[in-house]
Amino acid sequence: MNKSNRYSVILGNLGNTCDRFLPTGYKETLPKREMIRQAAAIPGIAGIELVGTWDITEKNVAEMKHCLEENKLSCVSIIPDLFSQKRWGNGSFSAKDPAIRQQALEETRAVSRIASEIGCPLINLWLGQDGYDYPLTADYRGQRRAQMEGIRAVAAEFPNLKFALEYKPKEPRTHSFQARAADTLLMAHETELSNVGVCIDVGHALMAGENAAESAMILQHYGDRLFHMHFNDNYRTWDDDMIVGSLHVVEYFELLFWLKESGYAGWYSMDQYPYREDGVAAVRESVAFLQGVEKLLTPKRCNEMRELIAAGDATRSTRWMRELLFSER
Amino acid sequence: MNKSNRYSVILGNLGNTCDRFLPTGYKETLPKREMIRQAAAIPGIAGIELVGTWDITEKNVAEMKHCLEENKLSCVSIIPDLFSQKRWGNGSFSAKDPAIRQQALEETRAVSRIASEIGCPLINLWLGQDGYDYPLTADYRGQRRAQMEGIRAVAAEFPNLKFALEYKPKEPRTHSFQARAADTLLMAHETELSNVGVCIDVGHALMAGENAAESAMILQHYGDRLFHMHFNDNYRTWDDDMIVGSLHVVEYFELLFWLKESGYAGWYSMDQYPYREDGVAAVRESVAFLQGVEKLLTPKRCNEMRELIAAGDATRSTRWMRELLFSER
Amino acid sequence: MNKSNRYSVILGNLGNTCDRFLPTGYKETLPKREMIRQAAAIPGIAGIELVGTWDITEKNVAEMKHCLEENKLSCVSIIPDLFSQKRWGNGSFSAKDPAIRQQALEETRAVSRIASEIGCPLINLWLGQDGYDYPLTADYRGQRRAQMEGIRAVAAEFPNLKFALEYKPKEPRTHSFQARAADTLLMAHETELSNVGVCIDVGHALMAGENAAESAMILQHYGDRLFHMHFNDNYRTWDDDMIVGSLHVVEYFELLFWLKESGYAGWYSMDQYPYREDGVAAVRESVAFLQGVEKLLTPKRCNEMRELIAAGDATRSTRWMRELLFSER
Amino acid sequence: MNKSNRYSVILGNLGNTCDRFLPTGYKETLPKREMIRQAAAIPGIAGIELVGTWDITEKNVAEMKHCLEENKLSCVSIIPDLFSQKRWGNGSFSAKDPAIRQQALEETRAVSRIASEIGCPLINLWLGQDGYDYPLTADYRGQRRAQMEGIRAVAAEFPNLKFALEYKPKEPRTHSFQARAADTLLMAHETELSNVGVCIDVGHALMAGENAAESAMILQHYGDRLFHMHFNDNYRTWDDDMIVGSLHVVEYFELLFWLKESGYAGWYSMDQYPYREDGVAAVRESVAFLQGVEKLLTPKRCNEMRELIAAGDATRSTRWMRELLFSER
Repeated sequence: MNKSNRYSVILGNLGNTCDRFLPTGYKETLPKREMIRQAAAIPGIAGIELVGTWDITEKNVAEMKHCLEENKLSCVSIIPDLFSQKRWGNGSFSAKDPAIRQQALEETRAVSRIASEIGCPLINLWLGQDGYDYPLTADYRGQRRAQMEGIRAVAAEFPNLKFALEYKPKEPRTHSFQARAADTLLMAHETELSNVGVCIDVGHALMAGENAAESAMILQHYGDRLFHMHFNDNYRTWDDDMIVGSLHVVEYFELLFWLKESGYAGWYSMDQYPYREDGVAAVRESVAFLQGVEKLLTPKRCNEMRELIAAGDATRSTRWMRELLFSER
Repeated sequence: MNKSNRYSVILGNLGNTCDRFLPTGYKETLPKREMIRQAAAIPGIAGIELVGTWDITEKNVAEMKHCLEENKLSCVSIIPDLFSQKRWGNGSFSAKDPAIRQQALEETRAVSRIASEIGCPLINLWLGQDGYDYPLTADYRGQRRAQMEGIRAVAAEFPNLKFALEYKPKEPRTHSFQARAADTLLMAHETELSNVGVCIDVGHALMAGENAAESAMILQHYGDRLFHMHFNDNYRTWDDDMIVGSLHVVEYFELLFWLKESGYAGWYSMDQYPYREDGVAAVRESVAFLQGVEKLLTPKRCNEMRELIAAGDATRSTRWMRELLFSER
Repeated sequence: MNKSNRYSVILGNLGNTCDRFLPTGYKETLPKREMIRQAAAIPGIAGIELVGTWDITEKNVAEMKHCLEENKLSCVSIIPDLFSQKRWGNGSFSAKDPAIRQQALEETRAVSRIASEIGCPLINLWLGQDGYDYPLTADYRGQRRAQMEGIRAVAAEFPNLKFALEYKPKEPRTHSFQARAADTLLMAHETELSNVGVCIDVGHALMAGENAAESAMILQHYGDRLFHMHFNDNYRTWDDDMIVGSLHVVEYFELLFWLKESGYAGWYSMDQYPYREDGVAAVRESVAFLQGVEKLLTPKRCNEMRELIAAGDATRSTRWMRELLFSER
Repeated sequence: MNKSNRYSVILGNLGNTCDRFLPTGYKETLPKREMIRQAAAIPGIAGIELVGTWDITEKNVAEMKHCLEENKLSCVSIIPDLFSQKRWGNGSFSAKDPAIRQQALEETRAVSRIASEIGCPLINLWLGQDGYDYPLTADYRGQRRAQMEGIRAVAAEFPNLKFALEYKPKEPRTHSFQARAADTLLMAHETELSNVGVCIDVGHALMAGENAAESAMILQHYGDRLFHMHFNDNYRTWDDDMIVGSLHVVEYFELLFWLKESGYAGWYSMDQYPYREDGVAAVRESVAFLQGVEKLLTPKRCNEMRELIAAGDATRSTRWMRELLFSER
């Protein structure tokens, strides 16, 4: 439990990021190799997450593997691109069109083969297009079942890989089928496969009105299904994808404490959209924040936190946190 | 599937309701017998929900049973009072103090005996005080476990009763342990008892950012665990407990359609807080709204809705609803 | 007060619309002339809103004017493009860089000249990039002042044009300087120019937690400053830009009633993002919804609504609306 | 600008606080004299706010004045009780019933006379019942006008008192007429009286989606109308009335910085509802938090903050805050 956290970043964080008003993005696009070099240079970063198609394909596997090794970066996860192509506009695994569902299967298989090939242990499935926008347009029963079946099919074929389902309440759809920690966990269990679990993106949890620390404990309590963590910050109503700790300081202390308590041993991965910021600087700052919290969570302080939690006195807990932030050291 | 819906009301809806600024409430308090007579006189109302201690105790069981029979009302559920006494201020089944947990058990047992005695089939557990307010004050692991164990203990003792867990994201605590449909369902399953399920309060689901129709399907999909329904309306951010359909017309059409599809056969129960309104008139209007929707959900229109859902064309679904509301008949 | 409403649409609604995950959009891009023909063919549409640079430039003015005349469409407003170019990434009129502020002035002047030339009476200013994302990055005093000064400068130069400030609480920034009806009205008044007013986008008002009917009355009460209206629908937390009336039926009845009461005589303009829908069908449905409400707002019913408002009895108002939607006609 | 902040508390914070489920409150009720002694004993507290009727009446003025003097406490404001009596259930100054409006006038006059008598400089008007709950029940034009006229009438009669309008988006009504900073400021200006201004309750601002620092600057920019400040904390969707700084650390740094910049010279008053906490301890902790921030806002750091704001670089601002919280000193 006293092992250091391992930090990683989604490669795209260092590139250009766009929004719906400025499809070209606010910055310049960099070559992948340059972005990887930049990632490796961020203090603390030891791993990288790649997006299928964008970053890695069956054609550039060897090159990418070499590039990561050269930069001493582990490939922490691959995220199949089931969200940024027109064909997924009405869903991938849950699409009503069986041909699209078949394509989602094939795309995920391809990425899983790539992952196996380069020794990446985890597929992070963010099924952002799988959901609905309007009343009376979604089949809440049939489409969820289809989604589960697709995930189960691929996960069964690749028992040596872990599949983390990354939930998010909305965007790009007004409602996602995998919207919250617990409903996503129910689907993971429904596959009856132990290699299907859940990824908490802290910003998604905040949007969902969840306390990410509590969600982590729920996922771990029901079969150790917290497979992966994405870090960023926001104002609680939208996935602003901001620098970690720029807003939620107290909540991040609590979250990192409970992640340790829960036995979570996965990566601490940055997932941001630094639209107008320098990507490297924004990620560096996020990692520095998390390392700062980690450093303060000494065994002694963790004991104190356990006592505070056992006592449950709001005034005492608040004072402890204030004294830590304002006057100690 | 073509059976008529059965409508009921929580007795307290017809009485005085207070808020934190006006603890005496905005209206006058009526005698229980008068409230029961008033409930029975509302067109469509055939059942009643009682709150333990407030409405029914081991002392007045016979009297209350007689009064309900006299008014031809079924007792649909009893809600143990695990929320409106000082001793529950830091939780009931999840309280850190074992003496309080014991009292919660005893209170629920007492109510369960009463229910058995008067032939009421369901205990509705709203554990509103079971949660937390501040960071670093709650034991997300231990307190949830205690909560589950308490529920399991009582439900195992009363296998002939159903226990519906009514989730709510917050209030009176800033966070409830039973906050959303899916996390509450996980706890229901954890008891390994088939007589533990979930109650959807539509207003609580809206507050939680859920689509109540989708939540109903999830609960039914995983073991037919939708045991009970509470109806009211709100502005999506707080439990305003308003007249049904005063705001969400389209959503209520979709919800009632899916409840039929799901095979839900329980009661349609009103749960409102008509702070400033005449309670009888407010409940009458809620029932009239739901009956109005029910009447429009003819087999022909249900077929059309199934087609709309299969097609998934937002413009077509929106037009169908508009034509139904504006020009048909 | 009994004049018919005039309906218009922002041209881009009929084109391709993208989001941050799919910068190419979910559909195909159509030629402008074709989009204009399509707009003109939508029943009820008599006006069009153009975006500067995207739709109209100093080079294509004559051609565009001809095309609109050919299709019997009024140009209702022009919206300067102060949001979809990299140079506006840190604001336009409120940018800290004076060179950018100067460019914003010039861009708005150019659009104002075009408007004058083609007889368009109104410039709709949506200053979406003018705001901030993070704590300790914005000068709430100086940047607001600069924003006001820029608007005042252009509006003073074009006294024959109206300038409508379209507020929105957030997106693309996490906070806009023109965020709500009342703070935007304060800035309009600060210019001391009677040709500067406010545009209500109903979806933006919902996001801001406003009741658009109440906001309209506030804007009209303080100097008749409601200059323009944009229509769409959403789930109250984000600018989903959905089909009008797909969610908020009751609220739209109240809004259209109060717009009449307020003496608003401007256009009723559609502003949607039909990402996955057929644009023409989605706009057609929105106009049909508003026309449906307009038709039901007969003088007799408006009198009834005035009586309901005077009485202020929630149950009675709710019943009136239900009977209108469910059983009348 | 380098004067110390002055801290005060609303007396009721130290007493019993109830919610709608537990009208008797979670704690015991203390005698007023004891509560005043307790307030005076909290380090930093030099002033007190009283609620008319609850704490101070025309009968106990002399006694209360003596008690405050004895405890060396200034009376910072009096809050007329226009919210916790049945007669205000449908509004006070904006009530449709002219007899109620007259009573609101008289109640506020009485409180204003008391304030004059004991040398209290400010009346804090929280018109919590003035608003509406349902569509089609409020007269957005007439009721706002009545509200303004009532406030104007009293404020004109007591030119030596300041009247601070405390806005709040909702609760106990689903919508307040004085909902946000800017719409409340518009009403203050409409009175054409310089002794009518606005009170920011930080929790109300958070609920309204406002940045309290920005709201403060807007109020000061338009005529120095920030008259009073109430402090507490919440989760941004409801008026949880929690301990200051228990959640929003970064935002409080920015707010206190801007309050200094704005020239605000009023009190920093605690307004909390410590339902389950020891009231004295909860208020003590809030004051300690604000004093902690105040102490860190040295002239040197304020200069650094001005530079950060001028630069507008999110990464740099975030790093500065992190280094201040984690590693400095």
